[in-house]
Amino acid sequence: MATFELPGGLETLKQALGKLPGIGPRSAERLALHIVQCQDDWVRHLSGALIAAKERIAFCRDCGSLTEEQPCSLCADPNRDGTLICVVERPTDIYSFEKSSFFKGLYHVLGGHISPLNGVEPEDLRIRELEQRLEAGTIKELVLALGSNVEGDSTCYYLGDRMRRTGLRITRLAQGVPVGGGLEFVDELTIERALEGRRQME
Amino acid sequence: MATFELPGGLETLKQALGKLPGIGPRSAERLALHIVQCQDDWVRHLSGALIAAKERIAFCRDCGSLTEEQPCSLCADPNRDGTLICVVERPTDIYSFEKSSFFKGLYHVLGGHISPLNGVEPEDLRIRELEQRLEAGTIKELVLALGSNVEGDSTCYYLGDRMRRTGLRITRLAQGVPVGGGLEFVDELTIERALEGRRQME
Repeated sequence: MATFELPGGLETLKQALGKLPGIGPRSAERLALHIVQCQDDWVRHLSGALIAAKERIAFCRDCGSLTEEQPCSLCADPNRDGTLICVVERPTDIYSFEKSSFFKGLYHVLGGHISPLNGVEPEDLRIRELEQRLEAGTIKELVLALGSNVEGDSTCYYLGDRMRRTGLRITRLAQGVPVGGGLEFVDELTIERALEGRRQME
Repeated sequence: MATFELPGGLETLKQALGKLPGIGPRSAERLALHIVQCQDDWVRHLSGALIAAKERIAFCRDCGSLTEEQPCSLCADPNRDGTLICVVERPTDIYSFEKSSFFKGLYHVLGGHISPLNGVEPEDLRIRELEQRLEAGTIKELVLALGSNVEGDSTCYYLGDRMRRTGLRITRLAQGVPVGGGLEFVDELTIERALEGRRQME
């Protein structure tokens, strides 16, 4: 007997599941074996939920977030501060902000960061769309909430430079020690940034 | 603003994914967000693979394994030793054996172990089906490969008792230290069993 093979349909399902992030070949096999032993109804529900989510969810024409309506509920909400735009890399970054419910302004999704090595140039990002939103004149501040890495930094510098002529206030998120963690888990660069940004106690 | 909510379709998908084993709410959300940002084609493929696997895979009428044909390729293979049946709890246990490709006999899936507390009595398992297979008279040995826990043990004793009158050879898998691991990871009971079952070096 040669190498062992799963029945065809199981193997196809395993391969498909193995393409999900964080699901390796062993997890994919375990999930596939679990699924074929589940209730028919439930498998049909999961299968339908995949298609439905994919079909119903689109990018907001204004901010680029994931939404079922145009524009999204965030852009359409009259109670949000229309003078403030938080610029993020991915639609999912918005959820991190919304979970805290501290930020009351609008968002703009760039769709990534500038990374010439990976072929991502400024024109591949939604920067022109951002400039179009600025034309209305209601926006007063851009908060750049990009990744705390080299690409995030260089994208911030590029945006800061390009937006300077608009006369807007342009800010970046504070860097420092995270809340609730001991200092032993914080790297040196974060300590350095936290010291640089230290604030007078009130 | 009240608590934050994902768009409806995303939430439904997250809930469905969260029912998979080993996928908690956070992983489910991450997977759902990944999926709606994937290519249409791929999502359709995954969705179809779920339904196809579920529809095509059934239990083998003889051994109870997962298969697309009746009987399964293992039961239909003339090269396998038809005098030997390995009794396992779940269809997926067969894959552990087949991956090693050491065992050349047939299998029989019980569908679980006896567990009165959980309402699983002997008649809920595929024991009668096993007895029917024994009636043909070709089988000479039953290898009981059930879980190494209390329920596995008591199911083994029950089967040993019930099958005794058939005059078959009835064996259990050896218990001992796993291959390739240091002794520091082996529990005391396993050490005890490994000592009990120690073998003369040849």
